[in-house]
Amino acid sequence: MTTQRKPSADATRRNEASRRAILAAAFELVQEVGYAKLSIEGIAARAGVGKQTIYRWWSSKGAVLFDAFLMLSEQPDGGGSALPDTGDLEADLKAVLRATVEELNDPRYDEPMRALNTEITHDPALAALYAERLDGPMRELKKQRLRSAQRAGQLAEDLDLDVAVDMLWGPLLNRWLQRNGALTAGYADSIVETALNGLRPRSG
Amino acid sequence: MTTQRKPSADATRRNEASRRAILAAAFELVQEVGYAKLSIEGIAARAGVGKQTIYRWWSSKGAVLFDAFLMLSEQPDGGGSALPDTGDLEADLKAVLRATVEELNDPRYDEPMRALNTEITHDPALAALYAERLDGPMRELKKQRLRSAQRAGQLAEDLDLDVAVDMLWGPLLNRWLQRNGALTAGYADSIVETALNGLRPRSG
Repeated sequence: MTTQRKPSADATRRNEASRRAILAAAFELVQEVGYAKLSIEGIAARAGVGKQTIYRWWSSKGAVLFDAFLMLSEQPDGGGSALPDTGDLEADLKAVLRATVEELNDPRYDEPMRALNTEITHDPALAALYAERLDGPMRELKKQRLRSAQRAGQLAEDLDLDVAVDMLWGPLLNRWLQRNGALTAGYADSIVETALNGLRPRSG
Repeated sequence: MTTQRKPSADATRRNEASRRAILAAAFELVQEVGYAKLSIEGIAARAGVGKQTIYRWWSSKGAVLFDAFLMLSEQPDGGGSALPDTGDLEADLKAVLRATVEELNDPRYDEPMRALNTEITHDPALAALYAERLDGPMRELKKQRLRSAQRAGQLAEDLDLDVAVDMLWGPLLNRWLQRNGALTAGYADSIVETALNGLRPRSG
């Protein structure tokens, strides 16, 4: 019979502190040096831990950066909460898309978010993790808001909510990634209006 | 007074042959080794030219790859031609979006296109070049088709055609880049129908 030693409360706290220091260091450093020059060595030095501590928990710099995003999204003031539901779908969607535009235009997030998107593009395993842990939960919150509008008769009954989410948020992400136009509040509003009304003329 | 020597017809032909060999080599090689491992040395070896020949015409591997795409789009059977216009907008758009889906799912293009998109994300100068020489002309062809439908009363008069293009093609590119769902003909059809009709219920 073997006895398993549980880590002490102190050790758990120390681990958690190290983990947070590493993630914060990765997020800072990628803004300063860019993803290409981000290294496990650099993150370790910035966080004041040994390289081995990082390799114990993560397999690559992409995995560290991913967890840094996850930590951000778990902040009390970050994502993870329901979308506004005032009953005015158009106004609520404009508010949310305008907030997305602001986030995408925030210089602090620019390099880390581009790096994350780039890694996802080239790494199917990271893409699956992203879909499961970050994009999936956010998508569910968006669909909840649309479902509520659908129940209120404001959206077509047979609407595919995934397609609707893709049509609302996809253009923002694309314009940001491809840099092929100004990412403004006006653009966000225009996307919401055009998506809701459709390209075809509406009578009345 | 100085006399400028014009390159002989032979030299021009040789240059053009080298240029095409280099671009074809870059396109092949990126499929085999991935963008991260693509190098000017590797391209030169594959094309049977010296490294200096490549540096004479291009500043980076990203620039070479970009021109490789431009060469592809100039093929007689490639892009550059008007979108189908049978008078049935929905059918025409579905045909075009289904063709885009097939292209995005083509394993030959997968790695090179991901690499190009990644480079654009991180390199504003390349993004500007892409917008001007590749995306811009393609976007103009898409807008021509939409303008024709607008004249026929099939699209709203006050429609912002850039927003319309973003809403139709953006979701395809996103789903491909983020790998967050199957990129199928059915998805393409659903995007077209949802964009045309809008998210709101239509009476009648």
